[in-house]
Amino acid sequence: MELIKIYDTTLRDGTQGEDVSFQMKDKISIAHKLDELGIHYIEGGWPGSNPKDIAFFKEIKKETLSQAKIAAFGSTRRAKVTPDKDHNIRTLVAAKPDVITIFGKTWDFHVREALRISLEENLELINDSLAFLKENVDEVIYDAEHFFDGYKANPAYAIKTLQAAEAAKADCIVLCDTNGGNMPYEITEIIKAVQKQITTPLGIHTHNDSECAVANSLHAVKQGVVHVQGTINGFGERCGNANLCSIIPGLRLKLKKECIPDEQLRRLREVSRYVYELANIAPNKHQAYVGNSAFAHKGGVHVSAILRNTETYEHIRPEVVGNATRVLVSDLSGKSNILAKAEEFNIDINSKDPVTQEILEKIKEMEHCGYQFEGAEASFELLMKKSLGTHRNYFSVLGFRVVDEKRTDDQRPSSEATVLIKVGGKTEHTAALGNGPVNALDNAIRKALEKFYPKLKDLKLHDYKVRVLPNGSGTASSTRVLIESGDRQGRWGTVGVSDNIIDASYLALIDSIDYKLHGDDKS
Amino acid sequence: MELIKIYDTTLRDGTQGEDVSFQMKDKISIAHKLDELGIHYIEGGWPGSNPKDIAFFKEIKKETLSQAKIAAFGSTRRAKVTPDKDHNIRTLVAAKPDVITIFGKTWDFHVREALRISLEENLELINDSLAFLKENVDEVIYDAEHFFDGYKANPAYAIKTLQAAEAAKADCIVLCDTNGGNMPYEITEIIKAVQKQITTPLGIHTHNDSECAVANSLHAVKQGVVHVQGTINGFGERCGNANLCSIIPGLRLKLKKECIPDEQLRRLREVSRYVYELANIAPNKHQAYVGNSAFAHKGGVHVSAILRNTETYEHIRPEVVGNATRVLVSDLSGKSNILAKAEEFNIDINSKDPVTQEILEKIKEMEHCGYQFEGAEASFELLMKKSLGTHRNYFSVLGFRVVDEKRTDDQRPSSEATVLIKVGGKTEHTAALGNGPVNALDNAIRKALEKFYPKLKDLKLHDYKVRVLPNGSGTASSTRVLIESGDRQGRWGTVGVSDNIIDASYLALIDSIDYKLHGDDKS
Repeated sequence: MELIKIYDTTLRDGTQGEDVSFQMKDKISIAHKLDELGIHYIEGGWPGSNPKDIAFFKEIKKETLSQAKIAAFGSTRRAKVTPDKDHNIRTLVAAKPDVITIFGKTWDFHVREALRISLEENLELINDSLAFLKENVDEVIYDAEHFFDGYKANPAYAIKTLQAAEAAKADCIVLCDTNGGNMPYEITEIIKAVQKQITTPLGIHTHNDSECAVANSLHAVKQGVVHVQGTINGFGERCGNANLCSIIPGLRLKLKKECIPDEQLRRLREVSRYVYELANIAPNKHQAYVGNSAFAHKGGVHVSAILRNTETYEHIRPEVVGNATRVLVSDLSGKSNILAKAEEFNIDINSKDPVTQEILEKIKEMEHCGYQFEGAEASFELLMKKSLGTHRNYFSVLGFRVVDEKRTDDQRPSSEATVLIKVGGKTEHTAALGNGPVNALDNAIRKALEKFYPKLKDLKLHDYKVRVLPNGSGTASSTRVLIESGDRQGRWGTVGVSDNIIDASYLALIDSIDYKLHGDDKS
Repeated sequence: MELIKIYDTTLRDGTQGEDVSFQMKDKISIAHKLDELGIHYIEGGWPGSNPKDIAFFKEIKKETLSQAKIAAFGSTRRAKVTPDKDHNIRTLVAAKPDVITIFGKTWDFHVREALRISLEENLELINDSLAFLKENVDEVIYDAEHFFDGYKANPAYAIKTLQAAEAAKADCIVLCDTNGGNMPYEITEIIKAVQKQITTPLGIHTHNDSECAVANSLHAVKQGVVHVQGTINGFGERCGNANLCSIIPGLRLKLKKECIPDEQLRRLREVSRYVYELANIAPNKHQAYVGNSAFAHKGGVHVSAILRNTETYEHIRPEVVGNATRVLVSDLSGKSNILAKAEEFNIDINSKDPVTQEILEKIKEMEHCGYQFEGAEASFELLMKKSLGTHRNYFSVLGFRVVDEKRTDDQRPSSEATVLIKVGGKTEHTAALGNGPVNALDNAIRKALEKFYPKLKDLKLHDYKVRVLPNGSGTASSTRVLIESGDRQGRWGTVGVSDNIIDASYLALIDSIDYKLHGDDKS
């Protein structure tokens, strides 16, 4: 079976999307996730366009990836300079990626309007830029920008631009639907015409402006293309790039092509969520294959059929992409989740135990208030322990006060917290400063507790996330805080929900400390 | 030119989507909107399944629609009763709609597994149910459930079910991809085969489980289908139904078919927003054609080209669907974005003006600290005004203090803010409570300022977003706050960044109020 290569551009074209931006550290973490998923190429950025992207290529060199190649993106040289003198081309080579991808103009209208050079000169730009790069890096990919629109406007010239790339020995020529306006039947017909004149392996890069990006990509592969570009969750400018979370299962399960191994395909949902999380974007529930609702059944007819045989209303088995069937307005799925979780935490309950029903009801109530236990399994475990009566009360917070004060026009606010805590029969009253109210409260609580539990010195807060829930309005909305903490043994997540952000943070902090103390007792 | 009929099922299949439900009043309002858009058929509900749907058909009879036909949905009769005795069929007729649509089974596996009757008996169900309905209503539509999956499993039987419908003189036979698992090339091939044996006009009904629903619908029309079913915004079970907001412009602008008049097409975005609003679901920014970001440009290369000629990076003119081009400001941006923004705000600068370079440097510095002006264009406008010296100082905050206090173990924290504000020569010192520190601070600042600027009473905070930037660690991280505010005239976004969440919120709040005061002065 032929291998279809997946080229991810979440870190480059994906960040062109409104609201999408990643810090350097996030980009490195995402590159690792993509590598683990089995993605063949990871486009890390455009080093010629900004210093942040140059830094990425320096950093990623220090990391060990299992199989993915790192690609740097740029454009053909400018007019009237040789490639070796062109700043953009030199920066690409200096970034020392495994692969260099450059784009060039296909559409005669763009050559005249945007580049303002002759059609002939554009062919030289494409050819000598690629030829120069080919001398300096193992693998060179050519993105033919606006290929399909350019072909419709002037087919002979569009083909000439590809021939210029082929003559320079580009390893792959990627046909781009840059404006996202083409239909699948057009993609198929135009690729057919290209294949008569080009023998270099072909790739496809589409955008979702007509809501056809996934279909366009799959049709291209059906027609013989062997390289597919896209982004996780379809992030990207305007309506987004082609969504790899739909294309990868489409290739594997519908077109029956080899692309990423089946074992890694089971991590697709996990990778989708991870990228949403780092972008701080709420996941699209209804997303094909990986969304929370993708296999959720509401209709009465569907539900009773699904319970007999899931094939009746599901196009694939959800497990193959790491998803699961959900039946809405029914506690069947809930109970089995709880039992599975209990097993994971070595807690011994069964489905007939009345406590299972109690936990289920408690969770439903909390979820209704905005709680979410994905990424906050430590809070979930504490909750189960409380219901089972195996939770130990290490401390109580009797009260606290946090003061944020800005004293003058140009001074920045300071934050101070005081806490009153009780451990066993003893109380401790103390105070601490912090960068902001939550940090001050965290510092004060820990200062008070470390006297009794010195091991809390090991506790580190790694991440703190705030999401305002859409029920309320403005600053009076309900707030969910997720905290990720760790010590030398591991990491854990906790959650708090309240209409007061300080309260929500406090609840998540308390759980984090409580979980640490329970863990220390076990070990 | 052939007219393609649009059949909307937002009010029936759309409400099977998780989180989608409409009150009766909303259903009537949406029906009017769809009628005004030029939709040919509006499926109002399944009267046999619940009393709310029966009430809809009673109510809608009292309304005057300009052209749309109202359709009621149901299923073929049960086994072992005649159609005239079947409860579901009788309820359909009693609802007195303009059109009745019933679904029947195509897939042999479903006939055996779900209906548990013989294949022959299923053909009788389809035939006599339709024949009976045809005697009682002008127009009868047959939805062939699971048609494509059924055809793949047993093509001869699948065709027989359609022939049973054709023999009963159904006005249209709709081929359904109920599980949403089919690819466009499969849809095309299977329809071709159907057309050799069926002469009744064909329709298409698809679901988005493979992210191909729009492409599947458009391919079906390309192959000769004349009736398309879908929902506004693609609402529907699991991954949703085919999205009419993408299909309608696809038919009109890409396939060049007649469906709704061009004048009404300009109302597409308005209808999309209206349905989101009534469903209380946040619009999908990146939605094709109608989304806020659908014609938003961020990349520097794209922006400078767009400013010369919008055709370079837009597949259609956004006005034809009621949308507009937007230029975003971000770290990928250059001078051309700034100039475009200035023009949008009626601020007169040009690229050679040294102030342009100053603004650009200021923005780059702020973005480096974590600022982001996407969605915070009001802060950006204020920033430009400050650089240009056209910013008016309406007030100064001399100081504030926010106290969050939890007094006992089981009490939830309360928040109180005090502020000292100066307007002109006068100072105002006041205090307010709130749900959390930011809400308290917001309340106190506004309370102080409303004395001087009574129009601030109109100011509403619509959304409050917090993002912890990954530079720092845990609760000591830097924080970005985005606030969306509005008054009777419009909405605007502001941003604040600080390592203290109170400070970041304060900066965004101050900008929001400042922007409101500048706006009031203009009007």
